[in-house]
Amino acid sequence: MPNSFGKLFRVTTWGESHGAAVGVVIDGCPPNLPFDLAEIQAELDRRRPGQSDIVTPRKEEDRVEVLSGVFEGRTTGTPISLLVRNADQRPGAYDEMKDKFRPSHADFTYQAKFGRRDHRGGGRSSARETVGRVAAGAIAKKILAQGVKAAGGAAVEIRAFLTQVHDIAMPEEARAAFPTLADVEATPVRCPHPATAAAMIARIKHVRSEGDSVGGVIECRVRGLPAGLGEPVFDRLEADLAKAMLSLPATKGFEIGSGFAGARLRGSEHNDAFESRGGVVHTTTNRSGGVQGGISNGEEIVFRVAFKPTATILQSQKTVDILGAETELMGRGRHDPCVVPRAVPIVEAMTALVLVDHWMRQAAQCGTFTFA
Amino acid sequence: MPNSFGKLFRVTTWGESHGAAVGVVIDGCPPNLPFDLAEIQAELDRRRPGQSDIVTPRKEEDRVEVLSGVFEGRTTGTPISLLVRNADQRPGAYDEMKDKFRPSHADFTYQAKFGRRDHRGGGRSSARETVGRVAAGAIAKKILAQGVKAAGGAAVEIRAFLTQVHDIAMPEEARAAFPTLADVEATPVRCPHPATAAAMIARIKHVRSEGDSVGGVIECRVRGLPAGLGEPVFDRLEADLAKAMLSLPATKGFEIGSGFAGARLRGSEHNDAFESRGGVVHTTTNRSGGVQGGISNGEEIVFRVAFKPTATILQSQKTVDILGAETELMGRGRHDPCVVPRAVPIVEAMTALVLVDHWMRQAAQCGTFTFA
Amino acid sequence: MPNSFGKLFRVTTWGESHGAAVGVVIDGCPPNLPFDLAEIQAELDRRRPGQSDIVTPRKEEDRVEVLSGVFEGRTTGTPISLLVRNADQRPGAYDEMKDKFRPSHADFTYQAKFGRRDHRGGGRSSARETVGRVAAGAIAKKILAQGVKAAGGAAVEIRAFLTQVHDIAMPEEARAAFPTLADVEATPVRCPHPATAAAMIARIKHVRSEGDSVGGVIECRVRGLPAGLGEPVFDRLEADLAKAMLSLPATKGFEIGSGFAGARLRGSEHNDAFESRGGVVHTTTNRSGGVQGGISNGEEIVFRVAFKPTATILQSQKTVDILGAETELMGRGRHDPCVVPRAVPIVEAMTALVLVDHWMRQAAQCGTFTFA
Amino acid sequence: MPNSFGKLFRVTTWGESHGAAVGVVIDGCPPNLPFDLAEIQAELDRRRPGQSDIVTPRKEEDRVEVLSGVFEGRTTGTPISLLVRNADQRPGAYDEMKDKFRPSHADFTYQAKFGRRDHRGGGRSSARETVGRVAAGAIAKKILAQGVKAAGGAAVEIRAFLTQVHDIAMPEEARAAFPTLADVEATPVRCPHPATAAAMIARIKHVRSEGDSVGGVIECRVRGLPAGLGEPVFDRLEADLAKAMLSLPATKGFEIGSGFAGARLRGSEHNDAFESRGGVVHTTTNRSGGVQGGISNGEEIVFRVAFKPTATILQSQKTVDILGAETELMGRGRHDPCVVPRAVPIVEAMTALVLVDHWMRQAAQCGTFTFA
Repeated sequence: MPNSFGKLFRVTTWGESHGAAVGVVIDGCPPNLPFDLAEIQAELDRRRPGQSDIVTPRKEEDRVEVLSGVFEGRTTGTPISLLVRNADQRPGAYDEMKDKFRPSHADFTYQAKFGRRDHRGGGRSSARETVGRVAAGAIAKKILAQGVKAAGGAAVEIRAFLTQVHDIAMPEEARAAFPTLADVEATPVRCPHPATAAAMIARIKHVRSEGDSVGGVIECRVRGLPAGLGEPVFDRLEADLAKAMLSLPATKGFEIGSGFAGARLRGSEHNDAFESRGGVVHTTTNRSGGVQGGISNGEEIVFRVAFKPTATILQSQKTVDILGAETELMGRGRHDPCVVPRAVPIVEAMTALVLVDHWMRQAAQCGTFTFA
Repeated sequence: MPNSFGKLFRVTTWGESHGAAVGVVIDGCPPNLPFDLAEIQAELDRRRPGQSDIVTPRKEEDRVEVLSGVFEGRTTGTPISLLVRNADQRPGAYDEMKDKFRPSHADFTYQAKFGRRDHRGGGRSSARETVGRVAAGAIAKKILAQGVKAAGGAAVEIRAFLTQVHDIAMPEEARAAFPTLADVEATPVRCPHPATAAAMIARIKHVRSEGDSVGGVIECRVRGLPAGLGEPVFDRLEADLAKAMLSLPATKGFEIGSGFAGARLRGSEHNDAFESRGGVVHTTTNRSGGVQGGISNGEEIVFRVAFKPTATILQSQKTVDILGAETELMGRGRHDPCVVPRAVPIVEAMTALVLVDHWMRQAAQCGTFTFA
Repeated sequence: MPNSFGKLFRVTTWGESHGAAVGVVIDGCPPNLPFDLAEIQAELDRRRPGQSDIVTPRKEEDRVEVLSGVFEGRTTGTPISLLVRNADQRPGAYDEMKDKFRPSHADFTYQAKFGRRDHRGGGRSSARETVGRVAAGAIAKKILAQGVKAAGGAAVEIRAFLTQVHDIAMPEEARAAFPTLADVEATPVRCPHPATAAAMIARIKHVRSEGDSVGGVIECRVRGLPAGLGEPVFDRLEADLAKAMLSLPATKGFEIGSGFAGARLRGSEHNDAFESRGGVVHTTTNRSGGVQGGISNGEEIVFRVAFKPTATILQSQKTVDILGAETELMGRGRHDPCVVPRAVPIVEAMTALVLVDHWMRQAAQCGTFTFA
Repeated sequence: MPNSFGKLFRVTTWGESHGAAVGVVIDGCPPNLPFDLAEIQAELDRRRPGQSDIVTPRKEEDRVEVLSGVFEGRTTGTPISLLVRNADQRPGAYDEMKDKFRPSHADFTYQAKFGRRDHRGGGRSSARETVGRVAAGAIAKKILAQGVKAAGGAAVEIRAFLTQVHDIAMPEEARAAFPTLADVEATPVRCPHPATAAAMIARIKHVRSEGDSVGGVIECRVRGLPAGLGEPVFDRLEADLAKAMLSLPATKGFEIGSGFAGARLRGSEHNDAFESRGGVVHTTTNRSGGVQGGISNGEEIVFRVAFKPTATILQSQKTVDILGAETELMGRGRHDPCVVPRAVPIVEAMTALVLVDHWMRQAAQCGTFTFA
């Protein structure tokens, strides 16, 4: 079950970077959801390699095929199986990795854990595995939009975007508004602040020209979410979001609301006072990030995820081989000089998976039976 | 199941702050573990209220009772049920909370989720719930020490400590060494650097004198852990640690290894080169924090957790009542001006729970059957 | 987790026959359910030892105490912890069992699995463990009655009863009607057919007088259940019922609807034709036992459970000791000459747990989101 | 998760009878297991339609493809994805089913549960779904054979076979020996007793000639299993076996050891005395069916499963249409006059899944840590 996520809306991903295919099975999807493969494809295209000149040139069409769970254009409630064939495999490019561990990759640890590994392009540890997450997330996003609207609610919107690449960060004031999808997608770096985006792109190209890489930070916001989602004490909403984000390759940190900066405040500065706006309870500020006691409070969910610089660099590095002898490894092959822009749709997908799952859990406990 | 944690070493906590008792059931504990109630009590004493003059004066003996799963001084492999009676209840002190939501507490969200709540001292959302976690964690710690030693391994040691209170932080160079338990416990603030500890204590006393509170940061390290623990792709070791930490009251962030600072580095600065030391593969640096690709690599596990300032402050705050009308609430009653020192044993306990669970999972998949 | 049952309405039992107490934690209970300890006590009294002259004379008041999850007379949605102290312990009576394995008991297998065991009265393998199941089942029964009625549905009724003791069976024609609780409880043997009940009681007294024991069969029916409950392909309603029943001590078989007799029929004899009665789809016959394709069809659920004769008999039996040497063991102490009458409330409790859990699962997937 | 089975060796099946494909994902498979697609194909061929003249003539090659989790001829410990394309689809043959519910099929209940269904050939409720189970079971069988032998144990053997078709049953004395695979596979009906097999085949052909169908009983035995497998109190070995069997289409009952007949015995007749044979503890008889207290005792596991007659018959039957109006339905199309022979490899597969999962669970709790 380590390759499954979610309790009720449960996704199971499978596949290696240079195997035959990657895919996902979604168990627990509500029935009768209109199903449009083009919408899933559109999300996959956002994470696809080769989409701009600041990402890896690996050529993958990433054509998604649906094998089950859909009938006459709608979901049936049975497992949805989605499959994407791997196309641009160059396993030979990875021959050197067979015997040498790439620094800060998962080569050494997979070998230590399993006693063997598919070394081609990182095998299962490759970010290619996230294809299945993004496909499932596209369905979850649609549930949050259409399923809530049909019940008279506001569509839930999830928006992730880059706030930082290396030491280039969006100005604080530019982060106040909920960015539009168009603003995020306006540049390949997916930062909605044009001046910052331009600087980020320049920095990525610069480090790439030096055979190097950089990290960055993604912020993700959710609006339209009602109060009441989250399952204390262990499955708090922020706990499951943190797990979802730290389950992504290259992530090193997660913070919600005030985050690490909140540790530097006093209670009198940090507390979110309640107020009534238009007859609805709101908080005046949102240092809680939309979650209190592990449960959504109806405000915007706001969290950030730190990504380390890509481990693959086109430089010679010290390492050891499979026998433990010290050696050097010269990085080569295709890679992203900064994985963060392509991680934006993945962060959104994981967020959608968490939210649909928690919504169903909340409905099950608090909405199934009512008592006089 | 939201009140259960772990897949194979599974703990279930129950109880409210001012109910009859709090407790925990541990399912899946290995049999034949020597069981000493005094060791569990010792860990509970570390998180107990009233242990020093910088924490809440609530008086709780927190005497733990074992009800099952132990026979003739050893565990039997059946569920271990542990119970702690609540003693110093002052439910009357919370009457005002019945109708008014305390800012940045869980009052509003529990009401929104469940339609009712035990308002006395926060009920289930109180940190008093962590009594059960610490009791279970004491058992997990012992397994990691004795169970590994008996098999010829090094005892696994877990050490958490404060690196920051408000804007007072340990100097970077003081964080190089693995602190001793004695150094951590030398002061009530649980920071192993004496000068920083003194400043932290002074700061906590100062904000308390102003009816205010502060947050802080805990670092946790683990040494002696072998390579190979962690279950990609979703149950990566850091993902489960992140979830464990964000499931704790008042936490706002988690980072492992280089964390958010890692986003500011280049790959050539961030990568951990491999080397051979005494015939064993190690990394020269440890920006990975002991985990690569979601699996431990044999280096020290290093992560940090951000805590917000205590929400309860002895000041008047704007809020709304249960009908949504705006009002004011004057904080009163006993509380911690800074929860972080008492959170140290809780962070250690959750870490121990994650590690034992992952160890058992790793053994199950990779150690049960072997093939020629 | 082997001591937990259910996915969303999840119960965890703990406790040994001669330990300090037995108990249960219920996680996922809907909030706002009126809570009455007397109703739980009433169900516990039905399974209590010493309630009649055909069961074990062990004296246990089985007074249940609630420790959490209830506030001002209603459930809060947080874990409900229930505890029953063991009273009439006579551990000394079991000294011989410490070194000798009782035939057809769990002594040998617990020793083989765990390397040690609490031998007193069977420890964890004792049917005393079912105290927690019955307490949790009483809550589940109430949810099925009140929670459905409040939503405008018919209360769901669960009725178990003995159809067979040894070779004495209820006549087929007497099994047509849904028995009343009063008819079931009219005799200590819990068979609603008076003549059969009398013969059963006589048989039990007779075998007891010879130091022997007998088995029997329980039938359980459920009415008022809507169509749509059950989660194919693995968590079919009958699959989870079968698991629930075979998880009870002394059970050897489960069958639903036509059961083993159905294997002797032709399809043309076995199929349940559909018809319309009062505008509602029904089946003319019910050989399916209320479940088709793993999902309830709105008809009565009907299943049967086989119980073996009590393993404890007051006769000398061949066995081995803990060192593997052959020896003899003379049964002594208190026991039930036939466990089946006391198993009736336990079968009902497990049925209620399965149904509430499946109801919540069905609501989560098919009732949370709706699509235009 | 209703389409997943197992806690540690976890299989997830997907696919509909007349969709694009059916398949399975296996998560938690031990690494380094030699992988041979031909062995999986051989098991699939045993359940394949069209293999003899007493089963459905539907033509399916059932060619299995491996998409992940295998590298250079061995498993890697990552998810194994297996896929079988559906070939001989005749969706037009099912047009009448679109609006009419077939008696004793799952048409009505799927419609009631999900509000829509893939009606073609039963969609998800078709036994075609078991392709994935058999493929996963082939891997589990190999683990039980090779993984135990490599550790110095005896290969675990699982053998299922028909003991009854309609009212034709194997003589009791013929059931004493553990049948060979060759004896089971000697006839298409998979009964190892030649005379009984011949009578069964004749009966199946006869009822088919009348457009009718029959049910039957499968017995399954396991030898070579050590004592200690099974996870009380809820995940007893027989409870998980019962669930596994009742999760199969067309099953109506499960019994282990003495089963329902055991209810007719006295304790003095039923108890299995212990004895020492060659220094190993055994039971003289095996009415327990190899399980005591939910844990294997080292004897043969023996259980039986009842199958109802195939619901599809070539006769006119009363039913209702999707609007609830009464109508008639004339069965047509391809079907098995008796599903039981093809269920033999499926029963074996599910048994293997249960045993591998329990073996890993037992190893995790009782074999990971040891204490002085």
